Amino acid sequence: MRDLSENFRGIEPYTPGEQPQNSDRIKLNTNENPYPPSPSVQTALRSFDCGDLKLYPDPNMSALIDALAAHYGVGRDCVFAGVGSDDVLATCFMAFFNSGKPILFPDITYAFYDVWANLFSIDFHRVPLNGAFEIVKEDYYADNGGIVFPNPNAPTGLDMPAAAIEDILKNNSGVVVIVDEAYIDFGGESALPLIEKYDNLVVTRTFSKSRSMAGARVGFAFANPTLIRELNTIKNSYNSYTLSNLTMKLASAALSDEEYFNETVGKIIATREKYKLKLRELGFEFPDSKSNFIFATHPKYRAEELFEALKASNIYVRHFDAPRIDNYLRITVGTDEEMRALTDFFEEYMREAEK
Amino acid sequence: MRDLSENFRGIEPYTPGEQPQNSDRIKLNTNENPYPPSPSVQTALRSFDCGDLKLYPDPNMSALIDALAAHYGVGRDCVFAGVGSDDVLATCFMAFFNSGKPILFPDITYAFYDVWANLFSIDFHRVPLNGAFEIVKEDYYADNGGIVFPNPNAPTGLDMPAAAIEDILKNNSGVVVIVDEAYIDFGGESALPLIEKYDNLVVTRTFSKSRSMAGARVGFAFANPTLIRELNTIKNSYNSYTLSNLTMKLASAALSDEEYFNETVGKIIATREKYKLKLRELGFEFPDSKSNFIFATHPKYRAEELFEALKASNIYVRHFDAPRIDNYLRITVGTDEEMRALTDFFEEYMREAEK
Repeated sequence: MRDLSENFRGIEPYTPGEQPQNSDRIKLNTNENPYPPSPSVQTALRSFDCGDLKLYPDPNMSALIDALAAHYGVGRDCVFAGVGSDDVLATCFMAFFNSGKPILFPDITYAFYDVWANLFSIDFHRVPLNGAFEIVKEDYYADNGGIVFPNPNAPTGLDMPAAAIEDILKNNSGVVVIVDEAYIDFGGESALPLIEKYDNLVVTRTFSKSRSMAGARVGFAFANPTLIRELNTIKNSYNSYTLSNLTMKLASAALSDEEYFNETVGKIIATREKYKLKLRELGFEFPDSKSNFIFATHPKYRAEELFEALKASNIYVRHFDAPRIDNYLRITVGTDEEMRALTDFFEEYMREAEK
Repeated sequence: MRDLSENFRGIEPYTPGEQPQNSDRIKLNTNENPYPPSPSVQTALRSFDCGDLKLYPDPNMSALIDALAAHYGVGRDCVFAGVGSDDVLATCFMAFFNSGKPILFPDITYAFYDVWANLFSIDFHRVPLNGAFEIVKEDYYADNGGIVFPNPNAPTGLDMPAAAIEDILKNNSGVVVIVDEAYIDFGGESALPLIEKYDNLVVTRTFSKSRSMAGARVGFAFANPTLIRELNTIKNSYNSYTLSNLTMKLASAALSDEEYFNETVGKIIATREKYKLKLRELGFEFPDSKSNFIFATHPKYRAEELFEALKASNIYVRHFDAPRIDNYLRITVGTDEEMRALTDFFEEYMREAEK
């Protein structure tokens, strides 16, 4: 008897955080922005004529690419865009990691890197973070087929100075180095200015976090024109039209409202710093996050136990059942009110436990 | 000196049809629908709250999957969706064509199949259509790693009876057979009912043609639950969140207006049949299309010459510079007015030529 499944690819997929549907839950589990997108996005939506949907979108995504290039002060041939930074990163993996040598990424990092490597049959090596959860630049100087890491790293929240990234770039001139800057707008120093100097650098970004548009699915990347051309070749070999007419209009609208962006990002940073103090008072320990989440552990309470107790109270955070980090909670920075509900819960929980 | 590009994948991408931006052009080159989407789509857009965009979409796409399952009368575990049928087809290629044996598809067919095969290093064999541009079912009984063809085929427009497809399925029980039904709503007999009987069948569909939503990027597929589970595994190993909150709402809205769907599809079919007669009067010859395009050749005038003359008059059709079909034009069926402009042009052109 033939078995169809013999010809299946057979991959262990990425597991995204839960999307609980009950409306009264506090959702601090997938690093979403607690604030809605800029009002300019709603205005763009209201003025959109659905008649335009009958035509294919511009496969070159010109209007959005131009808006991104102007906003970030780079050439339009230095910008690529896709269906969230996951699509952009997957395209980078396909485009650039074909040497046969293992690519390198941290042992504690975004859990999609090894999934893409497996999907595209790319050999990889996980480089351990040091005991303080830091990326050690010298560990990336060995012979390899490419490098990828987030800055700030996830789920640790720790950032790396651009000078250290530059050292990694210098020591890896024969391979592509991807710096995944999903969280860069919440702190840390962008590697973006380095794309002019290093032809092996790709910087990826997203509208999902700092621009409150996780639901719209838009990511982008910066690199020198040779790498961008290669990304477009792969994109046009997979799906010519990835971003819809409408999505591109909404993304451009979001980009046009810098005041709102600064205001909401500023609020999230202020809340993060305020609740770092509060969590520390409660006995939590954590790396000094520059992102929109806090990766916290407690010397007295097991993370999994807190995770389950929070969930039973309709507060969702993220717990990874993985080596070195299984006693940590990744807590997305929500509004002040959401964070107070979280710390109030911890206070009450600890009071009960210590009775 | 190291060369970064040694590690690039190096693929020849698919070339989509032009998207001319001048507003007075007549666009019959990418098989778009000449009518706007259902008014229900505009209503859904108007009522959408952009605040919802701050959250990731449901990665299981449940609301849309449920709507598709109910509409087409299949189980919800028999439905998959993606960013246009190109995304769905690419996912199928990754998921199912891993045997090492060549997959089979027609020599004259959708030009993306060989691009995906190259992208994913899948060996393939092009099976020639017969002299009448028909798919000969017996040609697909040889040992292979999988099969894919459109029904109706593109760019010929010719359909295949479901009984012939069933014979291909029976003779290929060990591999997955994909029937790409992008154009099925304009005629032809769907293989959809066969998914219950054949566990090796995938039927793909799109909102881009019959539902006037090429710009929204939504495609879908039907198959038995084992194949659908595998498609979701690959999707979740590439991009967990492919369809935006908003896009899924618009697609569900389009699906809810069957009256509009029947009316606009009916108009396109009526226009196609009317202009088949007119084109025949003008001396054109073509297979008897069941799609929303006509694949026409003329004994006296070279296709490329007509293509260029049309373009100079702001009428865009598609010409493929490929073996066997380089003397054909693929003409999308537009409105009656657009088709009259096309045939008026031909009349005038031929009158001038015969002077």
